[in-house]
Amino acid sequence: MVSLSQEGTIKKLLNNPDTIIAESLDGLVAAHGDILMLDGNRKFVRRKVLKPGKVALVSGGGSGHEPLHTGFVGEGMLDAACPGQVFTSPTPDQMQEAVVAVDSGAGVLLVVKNYEGDVMNFEMAAELSGAKIARVLTDDDVAVDRAGTGRRGVAGTLVVEKIVGAAAEEGRDLMSLKALGDGVNAVTRSMGVALSSCTVPAVGRPTFEIGDGEMEFGVGIHGEPGRRRDSLKSADDIAEEICATIVNDMGRLQGKPALLLVNGFGGTPLMELYLMYNSARRMLEREGVVIARSLVGSLVTSLDMAGCSITLSLLDEEKLRLWDAPVHTAALRW
Amino acid sequence: MVSLSQEGTIKKLLNNPDTIIAESLDGLVAAHGDILMLDGNRKFVRRKVLKPGKVALVSGGGSGHEPLHTGFVGEGMLDAACPGQVFTSPTPDQMQEAVVAVDSGAGVLLVVKNYEGDVMNFEMAAELSGAKIARVLTDDDVAVDRAGTGRRGVAGTLVVEKIVGAAAEEGRDLMSLKALGDGVNAVTRSMGVALSSCTVPAVGRPTFEIGDGEMEFGVGIHGEPGRRRDSLKSADDIAEEICATIVNDMGRLQGKPALLLVNGFGGTPLMELYLMYNSARRMLEREGVVIARSLVGSLVTSLDMAGCSITLSLLDEEKLRLWDAPVHTAALRW
Repeated sequence: MVSLSQEGTIKKLLNNPDTIIAESLDGLVAAHGDILMLDGNRKFVRRKVLKPGKVALVSGGGSGHEPLHTGFVGEGMLDAACPGQVFTSPTPDQMQEAVVAVDSGAGVLLVVKNYEGDVMNFEMAAELSGAKIARVLTDDDVAVDRAGTGRRGVAGTLVVEKIVGAAAEEGRDLMSLKALGDGVNAVTRSMGVALSSCTVPAVGRPTFEIGDGEMEFGVGIHGEPGRRRDSLKSADDIAEEICATIVNDMGRLQGKPALLLVNGFGGTPLMELYLMYNSARRMLEREGVVIARSLVGSLVTSLDMAGCSITLSLLDEEKLRLWDAPVHTAALRW
Repeated sequence: MVSLSQEGTIKKLLNNPDTIIAESLDGLVAAHGDILMLDGNRKFVRRKVLKPGKVALVSGGGSGHEPLHTGFVGEGMLDAACPGQVFTSPTPDQMQEAVVAVDSGAGVLLVVKNYEGDVMNFEMAAELSGAKIARVLTDDDVAVDRAGTGRRGVAGTLVVEKIVGAAAEEGRDLMSLKALGDGVNAVTRSMGVALSSCTVPAVGRPTFEIGDGEMEFGVGIHGEPGRRRDSLKSADDIAEEICATIVNDMGRLQGKPALLLVNGFGGTPLMELYLMYNSARRMLEREGVVIARSLVGSLVTSLDMAGCSITLSLLDEEKLRLWDAPVHTAALRW
């Protein structure tokens, strides 16, 4: 908690904005020493014990979205995760070292959120590593167009990591896991809404301005602009707009089993998330969706941003079984 | 999200401040229908399936601290929880009906946080119910004096609920569970720090004022004043002051195994909580404490308040085993 910017004081629990990631990683690994270890230079977090012969799952991205991805390393999900600086892609050498550290020879599947820096750096890392590599690109954010660089990868990424992670644990090969991951991503859609901005520690002031009576529909997990700025709406109106956008994009959902994930952005308490879940569930059920599984929590965050995203992911029998399979990570455990 | 007060607009995900608890409870129980059910009048949340012959554990208190207590109902923890209005004790009839609903004849243990309203209403409910009742009163907050009404029950309450819940599952009798709960409470201490106030939905403006460069040491989970207002400190300085207060109150800790819980108040992201954990752990280890178990997350919250509390709870061999025992609730699962 130190004075940082000319605009005022930053209200965060920290010692120094330059070491916030390092100190937080040290805490994570100390708290979960039974599951995790950190390489000497804090380039990646990995499982303490690897499973020989298993295809390794590696993900990563900018920090500030915790528990994504480091909190999802462990049995049944990732083998390693590379944390970049806040909202900044990890470097190719981080990713390369992670790949080399966890590759048991069966190959490595990279789970990459669709952002230019992440895509480019993971590609470079794949080439440098010399490992047998495949990639699943997540792009579940329906708030943005498919044109140009395409849609952003957001909270749906954790669904890919959970389901593919369970399948990897069963001993499936690299190409079958890639196909499964692409398949999960293809039936997963998300959209978010922000009530407040977030504050990057090293910047010390809010990333964007949002008025007292305003909200941002379709915001990205780095505070990127969404579809539109609007006046404050009720939870039902928000759920209605998000669910309608998702349903329109997915086509006919009548009778289809799905996972409903209501994800907090970091500054929104659980009471409000369950209320949003209640609104979203009623609307999706009206559309005929069968809510077969649910997850509510702050899992793919944007620092201290207030708001939430709603993710719908279709679950066929296989995906349902893999979703239910045991997982033992810092953030998800069953 | 509706305009509520003359001071401005309240930025929360809600439809109507009068129904926020009801809608949130509906969402909780819909999302966790495998574990939970809600009585018809939303007076209490209970396990869907009760265990015959087991002593029942019932807790409750004002809402706004989620997941405490409703998120801790399930195998290995509570049998029922009564949510009051925000920061307001549940009524005696809520508690009475919960007690009657989950009492299998082996008796009911009430876990009550030490606040006047909670204590009084649970006492009245115990009398009305006619059940065989014992009570564990939690008062782990070292920020306030023992004089007068005594110390407040805060995040340490979840440690009591987890350990006693595991013992109840093993079939222990009411008096032995009360003794165990009193024993856990006696070796558990917490203290919190607030960086921001919280906003009660029905009020629509922050509960207290806190300046840009200020923080509140020893704040309660309802925004009650703490030990003192101070200028913003670093995470290390905060951890130092809180840990020193806890250690001074507990006496010699050299070589003693303990659980370290770093608890977010609702508006503080996980990245900062793990950083605080890292600071606190180093300081406690310097005092000779053996950090045997760890828990980091927003588990006993104060709506959207930014800040955190640190809890230390000594674990002898029995308590360690009971802490590790399986738990299956909405918020804690292993």
